[in-house]
Amino acid sequence: MATVTLREEVEGEALAANRAAAALTDDAVASALTLAAALVRERRPEILSANQADVEAATGRLDKGMLDRLRLDDARVDGIAEQVAAVGAIEPLEREIASWTLPNGLQVSERRIPIGTVGANFEARPNVALDVAGQLLKSLNSAVLRTGGAALRTVTVLVDDVLRPALDQAGLPPEAVGLVRSPDREGARVLVSMPERIPLVILRGSGPTTAELARLAAENGVRTLAHAEGGGVLYVHAQADRDRALAMTEAALDRLGVCNRLNLALVDRDAAGLLPELLGIFRDKGLEVRGTERAIASAGDGVLPHDRERLGYEWANEPERVATVTLDVVDDLDDALRIANEETSGLAAGIVTEDIDAANRFLDGYRGTAAYWHATTRFTDGFELTGAPETGINVDHVPGPRGPVTYRDLWLRQYRVVGDGTQMR
Amino acid sequence: MATVTLREEVEGEALAANRAAAALTDDAVASALTLAAALVRERRPEILSANQADVEAATGRLDKGMLDRLRLDDARVDGIAEQVAAVGAIEPLEREIASWTLPNGLQVSERRIPIGTVGANFEARPNVALDVAGQLLKSLNSAVLRTGGAALRTVTVLVDDVLRPALDQAGLPPEAVGLVRSPDREGARVLVSMPERIPLVILRGSGPTTAELARLAAENGVRTLAHAEGGGVLYVHAQADRDRALAMTEAALDRLGVCNRLNLALVDRDAAGLLPELLGIFRDKGLEVRGTERAIASAGDGVLPHDRERLGYEWANEPERVATVTLDVVDDLDDALRIANEETSGLAAGIVTEDIDAANRFLDGYRGTAAYWHATTRFTDGFELTGAPETGINVDHVPGPRGPVTYRDLWLRQYRVVGDGTQMR
Repeated sequence: MATVTLREEVEGEALAANRAAAALTDDAVASALTLAAALVRERRPEILSANQADVEAATGRLDKGMLDRLRLDDARVDGIAEQVAAVGAIEPLEREIASWTLPNGLQVSERRIPIGTVGANFEARPNVALDVAGQLLKSLNSAVLRTGGAALRTVTVLVDDVLRPALDQAGLPPEAVGLVRSPDREGARVLVSMPERIPLVILRGSGPTTAELARLAAENGVRTLAHAEGGGVLYVHAQADRDRALAMTEAALDRLGVCNRLNLALVDRDAAGLLPELLGIFRDKGLEVRGTERAIASAGDGVLPHDRERLGYEWANEPERVATVTLDVVDDLDDALRIANEETSGLAAGIVTEDIDAANRFLDGYRGTAAYWHATTRFTDGFELTGAPETGINVDHVPGPRGPVTYRDLWLRQYRVVGDGTQMR
Repeated sequence: MATVTLREEVEGEALAANRAAAALTDDAVASALTLAAALVRERRPEILSANQADVEAATGRLDKGMLDRLRLDDARVDGIAEQVAAVGAIEPLEREIASWTLPNGLQVSERRIPIGTVGANFEARPNVALDVAGQLLKSLNSAVLRTGGAALRTVTVLVDDVLRPALDQAGLPPEAVGLVRSPDREGARVLVSMPERIPLVILRGSGPTTAELARLAAENGVRTLAHAEGGGVLYVHAQADRDRALAMTEAALDRLGVCNRLNLALVDRDAAGLLPELLGIFRDKGLEVRGTERAIASAGDGVLPHDRERLGYEWANEPERVATVTLDVVDDLDDALRIANEETSGLAAGIVTEDIDAANRFLDGYRGTAAYWHATTRFTDGFELTGAPETGINVDHVPGPRGPVTYRDLWLRQYRVVGDGTQMR
């Protein structure tokens, strides 16, 4: 009997997804997602039973946070159903960007056409499977999903017993959602190695594993949307209002394990009077503060030396040291901008200042994906900013979807030209 | 004395361009380009003299077509001046895409911000240097240019004696346009190897050299906009009008060395009656016709076997066989679409048919960068379609600038968020 390799298996799922892509329409996808929401509830026993098996197998192997994200219960199953129904209900993508008639009579339109098949790699969180698959279908792209191995039993039920039957009931080819059916990490590497079948892969999550996958994808000619590193920056300007500065610092640290929380605080040396109170907030949150020499010189004993290569190093990526924040004391706004632009991932940065000119200089000079004045970087999220759930986050410095990516970004530009056959140039 | 390597030289130009980028404004760039147009005329003797040296050194090494593209004369110098003035005069890019207020009062805007520094690699054509540099500046990005070595003397004059003085006179840092100052091909490889300084490189031209550079760039984490392969497709449907089919075939072959000309003719078997007249046009144009077995079976002796790996192989890339066209006789519209989508570069394809449903099925089903009905693929050009000169062409199947790329595409998305400091989520 011939052995089917992992690569051949994934190629099979991808090829079937490729063939299914052309059949997707806005109306049928909306129906399929509504049906999927009902099926999530209907298949609750199977989902919970597969999840229990996943959790049992993972206990002792995954840390507490990961186990919690893996585990489903009744409320979470309801949440998954609501989420997929919500994606089904949002407005489909407008396909025409603009249209015009050339002097020679040609009618030109600039359009958004589907990409074809998009890959998605995500950690062992079952809810992400349905969420991402729903968003990819919403954009009229077919999908090949790859979950962290610990969630494979649950995600397999969500694909085979929920999404595929829902697609089928809506009159669509069930293969429009494919799955890498191996718990092995090699599955992720295979997913980013098929530029002809899967030209784009969303990489959820962050850290060195994501960075390595993004590199491998690039070598293979596959484009990824990813943020191996995130981290928010807050610049407390010389003209910062005390209450606003403290409130925004507090608000930017409401959670620690997320990429858009305050990771690097830049305090203007002319605002150094606020340092004791800022350090007090860090202390109250249980944070270890790491800083530059000049931060230690200004802030004193509360600050330990920063021991990572880049000042913007993202602590949320490191489970053992997640309760950490970095502090620097900067010379002026230009110094803050330089650090935000050159020594961080470029995810998001904000300024606190009562000086409107300074605020505008900061907003104009920052090159990251989201720039804030008197609002925290915690708003860096597709749903918060645009009302559409987020497929992923991308911090590339190149044209294309950047920052929070939603289904509205997952298209190819095409010019469509109609003449009467007489326009020869 | 320390030796400066090519890499260090290019890094120096890139670093200076990086630093210059923030100073670029729409008004000052428009002034600089107007000044550059005047300087082109003023420095005509130096330009022509450098060009004469380039042409003399290249004679015997480059083929006739390349020598012609390298050579400048009075009229071409005037053309360069007019071109850069025209880029100066077009509308600057609108920076705000959309803006809205969230229920919590946050003001959000989605904006186009500059990329920073963009690289451009182009063949030994002096006019391209000024044209591309003008477009990059117009997009408020600084530039590092790399020309085919044969044009380096001319391009050096255009950078050092035209563009840089023009920038300086307009109050901008002259280093906003950098140059790879080596005629060596290694310069192109260095240009695509600095993701931190030059995250995006426009690769003009096509063929294996471009494909290899694009691969190398991807390995280095540098994104490119390129079309290593092009080629237009024309599908003559069963319901094609004879006169339209012949006129469009004729019009699509007005030039042979261009990427958007008719490269692959797909004739429906129910339109095979038109084959003798189509072959007559090919013959009149002096074309060798290469075809599939079924094309040879239908069209007879006039067709030689296709001897390349992919049916869409682009003949315009091969100087010795540029006067070639590929012919296939297809079963139906689906067969034509499959070939256009799977066996060509995806640059452009058109249909000739009087059947509006067939036309729409073709336009909806084709996945390339430009789809035509009763208009030829020769219109696949930024200036023809959008009125803005073309910086390059990109045939990637991923979101971002695709098809003809103009200065309007060279930006990064940024969300800008302004609050009053009380919106905490």
